[in-house]
Amino acid sequence: MTNLQIDEHYDLIIIGTGSGNSLPDERFDDQRIAIVEKSTFGGTCLNVGCIPTKMYVYAADTAYAARHSEKLNISTTYESADWPNIIDRVFHNRIDKIAQGGEDYRRGDETPNIDVYDHHARFIAPKTLATGIGGDKKVISGEQIVLAAGSRPVIPEVIAESGVPYETNETVMRLDKQPESMIILGGGFIAMEFAHVFEALGTKVTVINRSPLLRKLDHDITERFNDIVRERFDARIGRTIAAARREGSGVVVTLDDGSEVAADSLLVATGRRPNGDQMDLDKAGIEMLDDGRVRVDDYGRTTAAGVWALGDVSSPYQLKHVANAEARAVQHNLLHPDDLQAMPHDNVPSAIFTHPQIATVGLSESEARDAGYDVTVKVQAYGDVAYGWAMEDHHGVVKLIADRKSGRLLGAHLMGPQASTLIQQLITVMAYDISLRDFARRQYWIHPALPEVIENAVLGLEFA
Amino acid sequence: MTNLQIDEHYDLIIIGTGSGNSLPDERFDDQRIAIVEKSTFGGTCLNVGCIPTKMYVYAADTAYAARHSEKLNISTTYESADWPNIIDRVFHNRIDKIAQGGEDYRRGDETPNIDVYDHHARFIAPKTLATGIGGDKKVISGEQIVLAAGSRPVIPEVIAESGVPYETNETVMRLDKQPESMIILGGGFIAMEFAHVFEALGTKVTVINRSPLLRKLDHDITERFNDIVRERFDARIGRTIAAARREGSGVVVTLDDGSEVAADSLLVATGRRPNGDQMDLDKAGIEMLDDGRVRVDDYGRTTAAGVWALGDVSSPYQLKHVANAEARAVQHNLLHPDDLQAMPHDNVPSAIFTHPQIATVGLSESEARDAGYDVTVKVQAYGDVAYGWAMEDHHGVVKLIADRKSGRLLGAHLMGPQASTLIQQLITVMAYDISLRDFARRQYWIHPALPEVIENAVLGLEFA
Repeated sequence: MTNLQIDEHYDLIIIGTGSGNSLPDERFDDQRIAIVEKSTFGGTCLNVGCIPTKMYVYAADTAYAARHSEKLNISTTYESADWPNIIDRVFHNRIDKIAQGGEDYRRGDETPNIDVYDHHARFIAPKTLATGIGGDKKVISGEQIVLAAGSRPVIPEVIAESGVPYETNETVMRLDKQPESMIILGGGFIAMEFAHVFEALGTKVTVINRSPLLRKLDHDITERFNDIVRERFDARIGRTIAAARREGSGVVVTLDDGSEVAADSLLVATGRRPNGDQMDLDKAGIEMLDDGRVRVDDYGRTTAAGVWALGDVSSPYQLKHVANAEARAVQHNLLHPDDLQAMPHDNVPSAIFTHPQIATVGLSESEARDAGYDVTVKVQAYGDVAYGWAMEDHHGVVKLIADRKSGRLLGAHLMGPQASTLIQQLITVMAYDISLRDFARRQYWIHPALPEVIENAVLGLEFA
Repeated sequence: MTNLQIDEHYDLIIIGTGSGNSLPDERFDDQRIAIVEKSTFGGTCLNVGCIPTKMYVYAADTAYAARHSEKLNISTTYESADWPNIIDRVFHNRIDKIAQGGEDYRRGDETPNIDVYDHHARFIAPKTLATGIGGDKKVISGEQIVLAAGSRPVIPEVIAESGVPYETNETVMRLDKQPESMIILGGGFIAMEFAHVFEALGTKVTVINRSPLLRKLDHDITERFNDIVRERFDARIGRTIAAARREGSGVVVTLDDGSEVAADSLLVATGRRPNGDQMDLDKAGIEMLDDGRVRVDDYGRTTAAGVWALGDVSSPYQLKHVANAEARAVQHNLLHPDDLQAMPHDNVPSAIFTHPQIATVGLSESEARDAGYDVTVKVQAYGDVAYGWAMEDHHGVVKLIADRKSGRLLGAHLMGPQASTLIQQLITVMAYDISLRDFARRQYWIHPALPEVIENAVLGLEFA
């Protein structure tokens, strides 16, 4: 150790208040704990991620349905969004209160063993951090430290250096007004959710992406999604941005083919980078991976003794349900150092709340084939079951990939209405290792409810 | 046997072409088969039941959502339904073609072993029926006979005798035009689905029912549903009809409290009666139960040797998925008389596609308590999970009833968006006898997708 002046020593320091804030429950009441949060309590999911985006998406879903009801032989229309009141409803009346409540709770009398620091935290020595409270700088140390510092949007150099105004997932939901036109840079799930939100609510959307949209999904889903969305927005696929300039209150970007796109607003959604690089981890012997994540072992331990990491800062999954599950594992491991639980990374599902909705769990068809499985595959159209008729759905599919020999589900990939709900049954199937051989006939399927699309997909698999 | 002139003798006679028509697959190709259908091929579900009603309901759901989007801070409106084109889409372009295709198939060259009779069928002796084809009366007999003759709407005497025009589920979807006002008599699932359809599409609806609406559900669901729907239609609960008269092109009914209700149209939805009483079953030694169903044993056998029954005519459940499952059992039993399969009547789920949607499986809370279980119960509001926030849902609930000792799910009762989809996972839980003790934590739940309402309901149960 050095001659550092340590202001406070803690049993546990937690950096970040997304999933990290769920760690100190009553079992930690006898520990002195510091929580460091330089930004808003609640982290990405609550404040600028999963939760508010779904609130925007659901309004967009409803607007979209009203705009596209001709196929149902009813006349409905969408006029406009009351953007300021959406912000009031989502943020001022819901999210911001929860975030503030979380902070007040940790600062208040109910958790007297917990101190809250609100400066950025950087390591200055092993287990030792420079941070602060209000106007005061502080140096604190901890027996155990948990890095749950999350991630931040990546901004491509061409945008950053151009000086044009841009939005990210952290700002776009609080724009003063709904833009009439928007350029969205990116083709991942954040880009596609916002493309749906803004197009459905009446903004003219141009999407610019180097590769096919949602290219990391099973190829059947990627292909079908790319086919469909071209009806909704101007998709400049295979293009990159060569230059960007401000024009009036808006932005003009020049693509690599020389074409120009102008819009009121530019949303950059090209991925999020783990925040480990902001913390001087090398001062504490904490290694990072080449991709920017903090290196952790199966149990969430970094390369420095007593230092753990979870969530976006270290996880292979930038998903809140994974971060929460990792937090439960680390929580257990902090309390039971002799009985460590592994980070739960099997059969991780995810959903993309775009339109059509997408949900996925397990292997893609090509991953399953590459892994050497003798696979049976069924792509079942929503439009071939009765509830699909009711919906007049012509795009939705359930794709199942199973092991022909064992009858086990290897992967499920859904695109269509309620995909994020339908998939839960298949997550259960994988978690309980249920054979699909008799799955369709061993239970009832309400006729004519939408899960019949799963039933029929299962019936379409062929086992050895 | 009597001196009857038998025109044709068959290996198998099937009366009714709902689930009955699914019996003769390729395994029956060496049998001479008669199918008797005096009405439209496909039965109730296809022609006047589950399938077309859901097509109307989905259009109504979309109209309803457009009418009630203020809470999402968007402005959408519903103007009108193009009623004739709904009929075209649902019936002329879909249902009627399927029904006709089913009939053509059975009459055509692809099933040369099957004859189709299109008169009503009545028993005139054991295993012997009077029916006909076109202008010709025929007497046919069968080694095996399957009664799958379905059910028909019950018309209360006061309506039948009054001479007023009325609709049933069999006619109301094909009305010439959408009525401006409608009286719905009944409070069961047919009444509630049509009340939703017509109210959502802009018809002024009055519901008249002797008892609370949907009274057979778990009491929490019944109570909550009755509270909610009063906002949508004039519900005259605890009332009966004392008289009905025609007035202009409409109907006026007088209730037992002396009040009068006038409307363009009257829909009678007071239940459906099994059709066994139309077939002179006593001539063939086939007994009926007091409630009008054909008496069958666990394997679908009636009291007359070689005569089977399935579906609405005999089943304790008037549900298409049950009729189909019974048909599969009877199909097996016809082919394997020495290895009989029981009718599948465990854990039968059902859904009501009204608004809010309702789905149920297993025991109600009071049934579970009456059965002596030590129960743990959780009523989880949709509004307390993130997707419920997105939906601004303030009514939806998932009610789970489990055995405190074994951890087994005894009943699940859902009311809210996607209830008929969400319940499928719980049907799986019951079918596979999965303990709920570790159900929430043994699998992932996508955040923030709607199944989190199930996760939280499970987490709210308390086990011994």
